[in-house]
Amino acid sequence: MTSAAAQHDTTGDASPVAAGGGRERVEFRVSPEHYRHWRVSYDGPVATLTMDVDEQGGLVPGYELKLNSYDLGVDIELYDAVQRLRFEHPEVRTVAKPKIFCAGANIRMLAASAHGWKVNFCKFTNETRNGIEDATANSGQTYLAAVNGTASGGGYELALACEHIMLVDDRSSAVSLPELPLLGVLPGTGGLTRVVDKRHVRRDLADYFSTRPEGIGGKKAVQWRLVDEVVPRPRWEETVTERAADLAGRSSRPGDAAGVPLSPLAKTRDDDTITYSNATARLSRDTGSVDITVRGPQTAPPADMADAARQGAGFWPLAVTRELDDLILDLRTNEPELGTWVFRTEGEAAQVLAYDDLLLANAGDWFANEVLHYLKRTLRRLDVTSRSLLAVIEPGSCFAGSLLELALAADRSFQLAGVFEDINPDAEPAAITLGSINFGPLTMSNGLTRLQTRFWGDEASLEAAGKRQGTPLEADDAADLGLITFAPDDIDWDEEIRIAIEERASFSPDALTGLEANYRFAGPETMETKIFGRLSAWQNWIFNRPSASGPDGALRRFGTGQRALFDRKRV
Amino acid sequence: MTSAAAQHDTTGDASPVAAGGGRERVEFRVSPEHYRHWRVSYDGPVATLTMDVDEQGGLVPGYELKLNSYDLGVDIELYDAVQRLRFEHPEVRTVAKPKIFCAGANIRMLAASAHGWKVNFCKFTNETRNGIEDATANSGQTYLAAVNGTASGGGYELALACEHIMLVDDRSSAVSLPELPLLGVLPGTGGLTRVVDKRHVRRDLADYFSTRPEGIGGKKAVQWRLVDEVVPRPRWEETVTERAADLAGRSSRPGDAAGVPLSPLAKTRDDDTITYSNATARLSRDTGSVDITVRGPQTAPPADMADAARQGAGFWPLAVTRELDDLILDLRTNEPELGTWVFRTEGEAAQVLAYDDLLLANAGDWFANEVLHYLKRTLRRLDVTSRSLLAVIEPGSCFAGSLLELALAADRSFQLAGVFEDINPDAEPAAITLGSINFGPLTMSNGLTRLQTRFWGDEASLEAAGKRQGTPLEADDAADLGLITFAPDDIDWDEEIRIAIEERASFSPDALTGLEANYRFAGPETMETKIFGRLSAWQNWIFNRPSASGPDGALRRFGTGQRALFDRKRV
Repeated sequence: MTSAAAQHDTTGDASPVAAGGGRERVEFRVSPEHYRHWRVSYDGPVATLTMDVDEQGGLVPGYELKLNSYDLGVDIELYDAVQRLRFEHPEVRTVAKPKIFCAGANIRMLAASAHGWKVNFCKFTNETRNGIEDATANSGQTYLAAVNGTASGGGYELALACEHIMLVDDRSSAVSLPELPLLGVLPGTGGLTRVVDKRHVRRDLADYFSTRPEGIGGKKAVQWRLVDEVVPRPRWEETVTERAADLAGRSSRPGDAAGVPLSPLAKTRDDDTITYSNATARLSRDTGSVDITVRGPQTAPPADMADAARQGAGFWPLAVTRELDDLILDLRTNEPELGTWVFRTEGEAAQVLAYDDLLLANAGDWFANEVLHYLKRTLRRLDVTSRSLLAVIEPGSCFAGSLLELALAADRSFQLAGVFEDINPDAEPAAITLGSINFGPLTMSNGLTRLQTRFWGDEASLEAAGKRQGTPLEADDAADLGLITFAPDDIDWDEEIRIAIEERASFSPDALTGLEANYRFAGPETMETKIFGRLSAWQNWIFNRPSASGPDGALRRFGTGQRALFDRKRV
Repeated sequence: MTSAAAQHDTTGDASPVAAGGGRERVEFRVSPEHYRHWRVSYDGPVATLTMDVDEQGGLVPGYELKLNSYDLGVDIELYDAVQRLRFEHPEVRTVAKPKIFCAGANIRMLAASAHGWKVNFCKFTNETRNGIEDATANSGQTYLAAVNGTASGGGYELALACEHIMLVDDRSSAVSLPELPLLGVLPGTGGLTRVVDKRHVRRDLADYFSTRPEGIGGKKAVQWRLVDEVVPRPRWEETVTERAADLAGRSSRPGDAAGVPLSPLAKTRDDDTITYSNATARLSRDTGSVDITVRGPQTAPPADMADAARQGAGFWPLAVTRELDDLILDLRTNEPELGTWVFRTEGEAAQVLAYDDLLLANAGDWFANEVLHYLKRTLRRLDVTSRSLLAVIEPGSCFAGSLLELALAADRSFQLAGVFEDINPDAEPAAITLGSINFGPLTMSNGLTRLQTRFWGDEASLEAAGKRQGTPLEADDAADLGLITFAPDDIDWDEEIRIAIEERASFSPDALTGLEANYRFAGPETMETKIFGRLSAWQNWIFNRPSASGPDGALRRFGTGQRALFDRKRV
């Protein structure tokens, strides 16, 4: 893992520092043999994931990861471990996280970080915790938090993402959310929302709990629903083993399937271009934008999922999803000044749909299930990305089924009416194609498909779209159906795309982030959208306030022996 | 209306300036004969509410209210007008807002305001617009926006709060949300949420619309659902009259009832005390808190609603609600440093319940209906108030039915176990009493009662509480039922209350605001909670960022001919 000092200002001045531009970048591709902070062990259906942070292994110079505290580097490994458990270990039905004593996010790291880094860090850690819940809900891989010590702040938030929380009953171990009393900020990875919305802790008890730095342990922690059970130390090991076995018994994961190794992701990267097997990104610093081209499958799908599993990480839907995932994380973290992402596709729509159909026809197969949910999570990552998303639909593109979701996720889409007369007047006109995958499994964080969100309150349009599945839709049809935003012709095309990108670059980046965070999530809210919308927005506001991040704020003064100075006015 | 220069920094430096402390305060009590910015006229079932802003009538020196732009003073009059239409004009079934040309919130006012002032201004204007929707939904008083000119920004947001939007079709009039492209902020009064969640404008069209300062008019505005109809100028007057009559025809408001005049609210106010007939607030600047005592009714309720209407503004539930409403607004706006409000009550629980029962038994009566909804709206105002709320339940209190909602709205409640032995060992022990009003009409913004929110995900506790309606519950019972937070006895009482207040004052005010905004709204979200939670939190963040409010930010540079300088990094 490379260092990312450019993102940080280790002098303690939290002013933003530009990333990118040839400096060292954060790398999200890791593998277990290089983990510095986590250990994974396997015992049949039970895997054990142990956090043991290397104090000297901070991602950026300037702080030590004491007391099992974490930074982005620690969480990148956790994300990798959770992904590999799903794909490489079909036999694992329970993941136990023992001895989770953890002090939460590293405070010196937070205090020294620029605002954008803090916000991006919290977003990624939230996504990883949502992924843990997704594994429990949709993958038969249930997470058990075996809290054999105190789980504080982010440490307790990690437990909150697990299905079952056990706490040792020893008169000193406790769970706590000390962010408000100690640091003047909120828990950054969904803690508040999960306490009341998932665990149903009563709001007044939750309020009290969140003001106690020492936390709550013992029977009261169970009574208040902060944990599911407390266990005396002498019975700890056997009880954890018993619970893990119980939870494993509920799963239908195959005990005998071979895993699909997530082989190293091939990628070349320089300042201007990022290239994968199925995707290329061209970075344009002049226009503040990135041109992303995703390529459809080169070959027909395998005959069945057994063949697909033999293709392993090369199976097109898995390969392209891994690449998109890495690309989103790379651009988000390393290229904050490239504010607009422009998506194109290349390939055969029919091939994309054929792969989609293979997955949908085998949704009961563990591997197909994993691929579908991974694609769902990756598209959700795109939805909460604070970049303007444009989709550009041209002849030769394959915005069909799963890849059409990229256009549906975009803030605006442009489809060429017809063909480029000068280039190839005989080409097939630009078309998009709906598939059944657009009507079900790839839900957004709000629980709706992107089409349902698009047509929120307009059932007729949703039904009309449903009737056109499988038909290539040229620009006029697609516009009439409300599936694209604009359908310029050959004459206006270049100008219109250029203006859209230039205009976006002229607006306030912050206001765009707020606009997009609101318009992308029409309709109902879920725990997940509340975490990204309500909770994160308040946290971002607090992070940006002098009482937290100013020179006399709580984040800076933590550990100095000096009290923070607060502006006493309520806002 | 008094000036509130103390809240503002007219030098253009947006640093916060303290309010209170003997300086001039914002006054929320107004009446039509003193309106400077609105005219109301009546024609049977149709009232016409016309915005005609007095340019020289700004609440604070330093800006002119050009182009029908508004500030807090303009909105205080609008709120008053909406309230009076409901109570004083039972015959009015449609409220038409014609010639609504409006440039939105005054930019110079926003640019010169401290952060807290901007946030508080947006909160109040949001509440007023929610009240307009509440009148339409629950009061048979339907609002019609007759947009005979361009409605821009806050002007269009006001139209969005109306049930039906008509736009003149003259090739120049349009609706627009130019905040993002012109000012680098978001529409501040729910515009984004209403566009997609209420009017079901497709998200990509909404995105495009919100980047066009000139807005959208004509048939496209109808096609995109931005307005309900466009009307050629020659047919304008007759069509507005026709629509107003149509909407009036849907209402069941009584044409022949006498209105209830909202007579001037008696109030005395100095730096330390605010006194009304049924409530007193003692301001303690040392502890940063306010002790609020609400008094129950002194007499039994009138025999029926006709008698209640004869009592008019003196009818206890209406009187106490008006006083609470004014008190919340006064403290919020004028006393931002008093971060904790401590609620007590005094009186007979049985009397409170008797008044509640009269209202509930006559919910079909227009006046009872108005009082119940007004109480609902006022309690919702409390829910979104950024102050820590404590309830203190002692012998002689009357936390029953409607007044119990104050304790259920609180972040924490304390009920004395037993009596104060030194004061009156023979007193009735402190008790709370549930009434049927706690199980239905007084919903929060999230659509749930405060009890449902409290017991979110815990149906058994909700049912158990339901069975104890009408029974005075002493502290141990109330604690067992989960209705209060703590039940200290006589010995610990003073110390525990004192520590709770001191501790609250020691925390970061911003972090408390974020914590409370999350914990108070467990469970589902609605359009209203999305506006206060998701949208407002993002807007507050943006207001606090250099790209909007810094010396080179868009709010400061608007109208100077200089382009704003943005930090190009996306966060």
